[in-house]
Amino acid sequence: MSYPFKPDPRLDLTLERKLDAPRELLWRAMTVPEHVKQWFTPKPWLITDCEIDLRPGGLFRTRMQSPDRTEVNDRRCCYLDIVENERLVWTDALLPGYRPSGEPFITAVISLKPDGKGTRYTATAIHRDAATRNNHEEMGFFDGWGTVADQLAQYVKTI
Amino acid sequence: MSYPFKPDPRLDLTLERKLDAPRELLWRAMTVPEHVKQWFTPKPWLITDCEIDLRPGGLFRTRMQSPDRTEVNDRRCCYLDIVENERLVWTDALLPGYRPSGEPFITAVISLKPDGKGTRYTATAIHRDAATRNNHEEMGFFDGWGTVADQLAQYVKTI
Repeated sequence: MSYPFKPDPRLDLTLERKLDAPRELLWRAMTVPEHVKQWFTPKPWLITDCEIDLRPGGLFRTRMQSPDRTEVNDRRCCYLDIVENERLVWTDALLPGYRPSGEPFITAVISLKPDGKGTRYTATAIHRDAATRNNHEEMGFFDGWGTVADQLAQYVKTI
Repeated sequence: MSYPFKPDPRLDLTLERKLDAPRELLWRAMTVPEHVKQWFTPKPWLITDCEIDLRPGGLFRTRMQSPDRTEVNDRRCCYLDIVENERLVWTDALLPGYRPSGEPFITAVISLKPDGKGTRYTATAIHRDAATRNNHEEMGFFDGWGTVADQLAQYVKTI
């Protein structure tokens, strides 16, 4: 059974969108590396590599690169909860195999719910405390995650 | 499916014991708060409170107290993987609901395997790097976790 997830507005940040696509298609776009590479970082940043081992404890890696190639963010996360077409949870507090990481920041929860002919897409970032949450908001959470959701909506029209 | 767990000797510490008890009994001792309180910290330290929400994402809390009550360690961990009578995995890198914690140190994996009339008990502490592993060893991992395993072996004879 999946853990019943309840975001805490003092600690968590949530972005919601209604997307004009069936959730099975969104799920594919979220869980297949060749798809993830096309939308998962705000352009013009690029994802140059993506690895997915889709099971609890498995690796979710994305290597992001700035347009001028001077900045690289090679991010290794661990999947925690996977409910096909419904919910995907991963964290950077753990590496694959549940190993504690050196740089814990968020746990991400993406949920997909049928909504008319489309899908209600809800993306939540879970933080350890209010200071981390507020810092993430100031860093541009809504702009960044919103852009990524828009890119997902555009990309799924092409697959 | 459970993640196939492979300890890395450079990063992880493992304690093995053959215990003279069936694994179903050990599992009960490990997963019911009234039992956990009796053996899970080296005496004469006490566990004064224990909460268990036995599901992935659920709380594993133990409040440990020194004999003179001057030191208290109230530890909130998150269960990650639960295979009844076989494997129990939790971490202090996450709080319940998969929230990143402020003080990540280890992920613990306890595995139970039938071994003759008894059980092979294997307890592994997974660390983020070799320095943390080595520090844990110097802090007395083998003495502490060994004492706890001995206390478990003694305690299950009484239930």
